[in-house]
Amino acid sequence: MPHLPSLRADDLRTYHVQIRQRYDAFVKRGVKLNLTRGKPSAEQLDLSNDLLTLPGKGEFISGAIDARNYGELAGLPELRAIAAPIFGVTPDRIVAGENSSLSAMHDSVAFSMLKGTCDSERPWSEESRVAFICPVPGYDRHFFICQEFGIEMIPVPLLATGPDMDAVEKLVAADPQIKGMWCVPKYSNPSGAVYSNDTIERIAKMKTAARDFRVFWDNAYAVHHLTNERIEIANLDELCAKHGNPNRAFLFGSTSKVTFAGAGVGFFAGSKDNVAWYLKRIEKRTIGGDKVNQLRHVRFFKNTDGIHKLMDKHREILAPKFTTVLDTFKEHLGNTGVAEWTEPKGGYFITLDVLEGTAKQVVKLAKEAGVELTPAGSTHPGGNDPLDRTIRIAPSFPPASEVALAAEGVVIATLLAATEKLLQSAK
Amino acid sequence: MPHLPSLRADDLRTYHVQIRQRYDAFVKRGVKLNLTRGKPSAEQLDLSNDLLTLPGKGEFISGAIDARNYGELAGLPELRAIAAPIFGVTPDRIVAGENSSLSAMHDSVAFSMLKGTCDSERPWSEESRVAFICPVPGYDRHFFICQEFGIEMIPVPLLATGPDMDAVEKLVAADPQIKGMWCVPKYSNPSGAVYSNDTIERIAKMKTAARDFRVFWDNAYAVHHLTNERIEIANLDELCAKHGNPNRAFLFGSTSKVTFAGAGVGFFAGSKDNVAWYLKRIEKRTIGGDKVNQLRHVRFFKNTDGIHKLMDKHREILAPKFTTVLDTFKEHLGNTGVAEWTEPKGGYFITLDVLEGTAKQVVKLAKEAGVELTPAGSTHPGGNDPLDRTIRIAPSFPPASEVALAAEGVVIATLLAATEKLLQSAK
Repeated sequence: MPHLPSLRADDLRTYHVQIRQRYDAFVKRGVKLNLTRGKPSAEQLDLSNDLLTLPGKGEFISGAIDARNYGELAGLPELRAIAAPIFGVTPDRIVAGENSSLSAMHDSVAFSMLKGTCDSERPWSEESRVAFICPVPGYDRHFFICQEFGIEMIPVPLLATGPDMDAVEKLVAADPQIKGMWCVPKYSNPSGAVYSNDTIERIAKMKTAARDFRVFWDNAYAVHHLTNERIEIANLDELCAKHGNPNRAFLFGSTSKVTFAGAGVGFFAGSKDNVAWYLKRIEKRTIGGDKVNQLRHVRFFKNTDGIHKLMDKHREILAPKFTTVLDTFKEHLGNTGVAEWTEPKGGYFITLDVLEGTAKQVVKLAKEAGVELTPAGSTHPGGNDPLDRTIRIAPSFPPASEVALAAEGVVIATLLAATEKLLQSAK
Repeated sequence: MPHLPSLRADDLRTYHVQIRQRYDAFVKRGVKLNLTRGKPSAEQLDLSNDLLTLPGKGEFISGAIDARNYGELAGLPELRAIAAPIFGVTPDRIVAGENSSLSAMHDSVAFSMLKGTCDSERPWSEESRVAFICPVPGYDRHFFICQEFGIEMIPVPLLATGPDMDAVEKLVAADPQIKGMWCVPKYSNPSGAVYSNDTIERIAKMKTAARDFRVFWDNAYAVHHLTNERIEIANLDELCAKHGNPNRAFLFGSTSKVTFAGAGVGFFAGSKDNVAWYLKRIEKRTIGGDKVNQLRHVRFFKNTDGIHKLMDKHREILAPKFTTVLDTFKEHLGNTGVAEWTEPKGGYFITLDVLEGTAKQVVKLAKEAGVELTPAGSTHPGGNDPLDRTIRIAPSFPPASEVALAAEGVVIATLLAATEKLLQSAK
């Protein structure tokens, strides 16, 4: 592959004709492929089909609890005990709630706005201004929550080791209106970055001007490995306690990408005071979560190791799709000078950075060629990627047979958009 | 039974000795009974045990939707179609959400506080003051939501025909800060009152000073009949539209007391604009409800009539328990002049009005005799029943064999507390 930025104008024009032809040929194939959202594939969902007949005939008792009736605000103890080790907390400090962690995150923000945290002097909605640190690239649904509640988003770069902590420390020390920070610490959405232990300890101990600062620790991919290595990260909650900030972390996670997406169980975890605060809030909105579904998951997982074993099977399905995309990128984009990408060891996404100023065009061209991508910019607060460069690739949903084709479409769109951009600059 | 308020002091003292002996004898039996919350009994829950193995092996497709995966913010169309007739709306105007209507009610208030309704000029939290009309006796969890968000509660009497509309009309016409009103229109919690068609039409057409006034229509007992008569009430939503207030009503309900309490499906319904508003809000907190549980309910109910047939079986279990309580009250409290009670034709509760100033004491005495009742005052905003008179009786949960005994305990406590109160006054 030629290194496009080094080509002379003549060669660039020649290359443009070729890549245009390849693009047109691709369009003619009339494919309809989708790499937008991090949805599990049908094959992955099949792994949990036992849930469709669980908990089973006459099975509704968990300990002494009738799972069919009201009660148990914090969720079934049996399930909390299975999930707690994954969150690095004791079972009394985890709440099994609804079917998603997104709702627990939304509610934690909404409750803080309406009531304040357990360390707040007043509801955040009564503050002159509320701001969150948003590592970018990041997860669009985190940003939507901020937008919904008028929370200012302050982007900081997400490095391979996690957020740029020099920048974060400076910001939170200076500004008491910075009340929160979004983090996807392991196999981050969308870069796949894994926060280093040093980063996590710095998050735990940094000085914040806001006494009621909260880290929204969305550990969505805690057990979602793509390699043989089950990467473990430092325990933020323990480190916060160690450094005298025991209530700093709100921990979130779910089984959405473990069992059924949308029919799993979401969790909130944290310090004793945070859990008490959370329970006091949700007590106003629910008598308890769906304990039959919680019991269903208890019977299906059996124990914490049951989760890990299940995730191994997910990996067997997912890893080859990631390999296909990465191989295609390497073969066709390697050394072209117009693209870089991450090689995640877990999670659901690859971040593709294309030539500056072409991400929107790549997404548009891919779409016109039948390959749907997440909108360019969605990895940044307000949908605004100032360099128009970052694209989130989600290879999980299409069948393996289609992933290669979809990746090829992305590659061609990337090369065509880059060539046209370079030609414009050459004029 | 003697008419206690008419007894001379001597006779009252004699009667006191007798009733005290009866009370002491009851205490000695060492019973442990519970009439506190409106929980279905195990026998009722058994009616829905087919859900424990549904949707069934290999069953996860509803229409063209894979219920196991993300999506369908408004819920499974199949289930919405089954539920819509019960709410008196078309299926496009109902949202199948989480496992309870309480959470939909809480969130509707929280969203209105944080964002305002679709007719609000500003978020309610930015108003100088927000007040709700609260018919009393009413449902404590409604009041808790108001308390949580600092919403002032204005009590109005709940008559046999619904809220005292003369009072309501006057209040809402005069005060633009009255933004809402709680209603349990059918088999009301706790009196069992059924709003008359006239009341409902007056609610629909009354002039409100607040442009963004909302009726929180908690139709929790829409299909929960206790007699052969399936009482139908006027369609508030239609009447609001007819009278030019199309967005006035937020409609709520769930299958909590139809299938499994806590593992059912909750619903929000309303006008096109209200549903669009609600979806726009919940879009920030969820990618969709638990569609596998929704499919489970589709397969279990089969159609709307399936719900009614199931409710007939609930009635067979519930009605005798209500009869037992009412018969016991009639036999032992009738014509005593110290108690009145409602005779509900549906729902989960009986309201027992005891001698003024004795409700707290009745609950205390009953508790000490092993019969747990809902705290006195819980039927009123802030837990404050100014006449200390109203007690909510929930006969659903204990086995039939225990209901008579529990009711006897209530009767004895009522008579003892009344006698002591009258003796004090006689001094």
